[in-house]
Amino acid sequence: MKNVAIVGTGHTKFGVRTDVNLQELAWEAIKQALEEASLDQSDIQYFVVGNFGNWSSEEIPAVVIGEYSNLNPNGTMRVEAACATGSAALRDAYLSVKSGEVDIALAVGVEQMHQSPNPNTIELIGRAGDYFWEFQNFGLTFPSYYALHASAYMSKYNVKEEDLGNIAVKNHYYGARNPYAQFQKEITMEDYLNSRPVAYPLRILDSSPITDGAAAVLLASEEVVKRITDSPIWITSQGTASGTANLSRRSDFTHIEAAELAAKQAYKKAGINFETSWKYFDVAEVHDCFTIAEVMAYEDLGFAKRGEGYQLARENQTYIGGKIPVNVDGGLKAKGHPIGATGISMAVSITRQLLYRSHKGTQVDVKNGMGLFHNVGGTGHYAYVTILSSRRPSS
Amino acid sequence: MKNVAIVGTGHTKFGVRTDVNLQELAWEAIKQALEEASLDQSDIQYFVVGNFGNWSSEEIPAVVIGEYSNLNPNGTMRVEAACATGSAALRDAYLSVKSGEVDIALAVGVEQMHQSPNPNTIELIGRAGDYFWEFQNFGLTFPSYYALHASAYMSKYNVKEEDLGNIAVKNHYYGARNPYAQFQKEITMEDYLNSRPVAYPLRILDSSPITDGAAAVLLASEEVVKRITDSPIWITSQGTASGTANLSRRSDFTHIEAAELAAKQAYKKAGINFETSWKYFDVAEVHDCFTIAEVMAYEDLGFAKRGEGYQLARENQTYIGGKIPVNVDGGLKAKGHPIGATGISMAVSITRQLLYRSHKGTQVDVKNGMGLFHNVGGTGHYAYVTILSSRRPSS
Repeated sequence: MKNVAIVGTGHTKFGVRTDVNLQELAWEAIKQALEEASLDQSDIQYFVVGNFGNWSSEEIPAVVIGEYSNLNPNGTMRVEAACATGSAALRDAYLSVKSGEVDIALAVGVEQMHQSPNPNTIELIGRAGDYFWEFQNFGLTFPSYYALHASAYMSKYNVKEEDLGNIAVKNHYYGARNPYAQFQKEITMEDYLNSRPVAYPLRILDSSPITDGAAAVLLASEEVVKRITDSPIWITSQGTASGTANLSRRSDFTHIEAAELAAKQAYKKAGINFETSWKYFDVAEVHDCFTIAEVMAYEDLGFAKRGEGYQLARENQTYIGGKIPVNVDGGLKAKGHPIGATGISMAVSITRQLLYRSHKGTQVDVKNGMGLFHNVGGTGHYAYVTILSSRRPSS
Repeated sequence: MKNVAIVGTGHTKFGVRTDVNLQELAWEAIKQALEEASLDQSDIQYFVVGNFGNWSSEEIPAVVIGEYSNLNPNGTMRVEAACATGSAALRDAYLSVKSGEVDIALAVGVEQMHQSPNPNTIELIGRAGDYFWEFQNFGLTFPSYYALHASAYMSKYNVKEEDLGNIAVKNHYYGARNPYAQFQKEITMEDYLNSRPVAYPLRILDSSPITDGAAAVLLASEEVVKRITDSPIWITSQGTASGTANLSRRSDFTHIEAAELAAKQAYKKAGINFETSWKYFDVAEVHDCFTIAEVMAYEDLGFAKRGEGYQLARENQTYIGGKIPVNVDGGLKAKGHPIGATGISMAVSITRQLLYRSHKGTQVDVKNGMGLFHNVGGTGHYAYVTILSSRRPSS
């Protein structure tokens, strides 16, 4: 098995990106990654495109991106894992290098949600749940899915609205410092409490937005890393798990089982103790599609015990300087959530953190040289947890 | 790098399969593969779903299949490479085992094209080409794409209609002997010549049908293969390449460059000489979405020199007993072409051939213990060539 490192990262401005088409948007991120690594397209041997894509009539995104970005005749595929699509793209590219099939691979995630021919974006997002049963019969969409989680969690642990608000305030605080973020604007707790309800108990300021954007990472095998960079960020391990489509088959709404399983897989491979996992990491990105999702993520990742996740936020322990800084690029909430790009965007953020290349006001202190990202598709239909490190894996 | 073998295969009846839903169809193939390998779901560590899927409002096929087939909480993703989607699913599962991430993985391809809420299936298939330019501006759909190839080829090499007809007659001959085939009916050259035109020079009997179906393979690493089976079929190598979306950027319509590149990649890894490649293989499956595609495949795989592919068929060299039997399960033409399942179906056919487990009247003589399958997405937008062997790779 080969060790695999990230040797280049690219990230577009997230937001309303109707100034470009899908392939132009992807190329913005790819170009940046190539320049960062001082590589050109002829160095790439394989590329993987993460795109959920139902917003578009473009059914072969990998092909149009390949042509526009001059990546032919490299082999390629498109992958999908709902909102964890970016991490799935990273996975296939990672496996291609780790297995020795290729030495240099590109993973690019891209989504253009504002170009949808179907104006009902909520319906389209609802299709990432159990569409034929839960959406068509009960009208469940993603705000209502996560409202179920929020209600269960708040009821069981006697949590207040302000505890969810803390997540939104933090993520907007950092989004305001990230020039790539969709919402570069701080909010106050008063703003949060006054924002309109979406699906009780969730408000508009609990919710990640509809976003266009792209992100890219270049991966290289240990043999070629040295030629490219003296500051590789290694992929230490990855865990992946799935959950049922039908939520009635889940036993507990106060956490996301697949995410916990994915974390434990990744930790086991990396020799990390679940109960004290936060001590290993300088920084984490978690899938805060809604504020409650970030609270559950703290617990699913072992950063807090069950029922105590919200206290981390209450004590400001997930700000820079706290026990474990989380989503200090703004997270899905403020940076935005372009479905297929989100997981790769997380990988870019963690890589740049570990290299002290984050935007002003968002850089953490790097002590252990290790970070992780947690990317969930649906409500735990898919989960991927990936650990990155400046230290070369020993294997 | 770990050696990887196919240890179980599953294949549904292809055709109009509106008797089941998508997940039931996938499970038919998965169940067969599990029974063949004497494994159950708890032995699987990762599964990959190949599904093009635009025929359905089901946007998370991997999730509904995972739930129905009791594959939770294993990690999963859906992959897409247009008509080469099945090979792409096989690739990701293969890489997951080869890289050491998991020991047992499942690749399942499935498509249900007769359930489309959009009655215009030809438009949906057209989207697997350069939709926004070629389809919307010029009305190009897949019959017309391959008609361009056929016209170019027939003109350059002075080929007759009967030379395409030979492919259709052969593939229907074997489809008639395959109980899983959509069209289990022989045709004569007269039938072919009298069949109605679709896109000149192609007729309805040059064309693969709209098909529902599923196929599955279970992959295992060398360490666990012995516990499962004493007749593994190893994945010797795989090549993959891509072509431009826009056909006007291609230099030659008489062959598919990406397919030739993918073949040469796979051959290089396997130590196979391109010019004499046919001598290495007992049997091949090629992507005959239209008859002309099979003729071009002969040349792109090195079975015949440029401009001489049609002669192989004229001399019956691709029937059982000839130089290189091709599509002796009926091919896409007669067996059917359920987009996401096709590549996995090819893997199942080759595996069963090498194990002397093909249907009566379709079994080849196995001398070298090696076969290959060639799976093309679009008109060479994607290409995958995979070599299987009963001999364990040396590496």
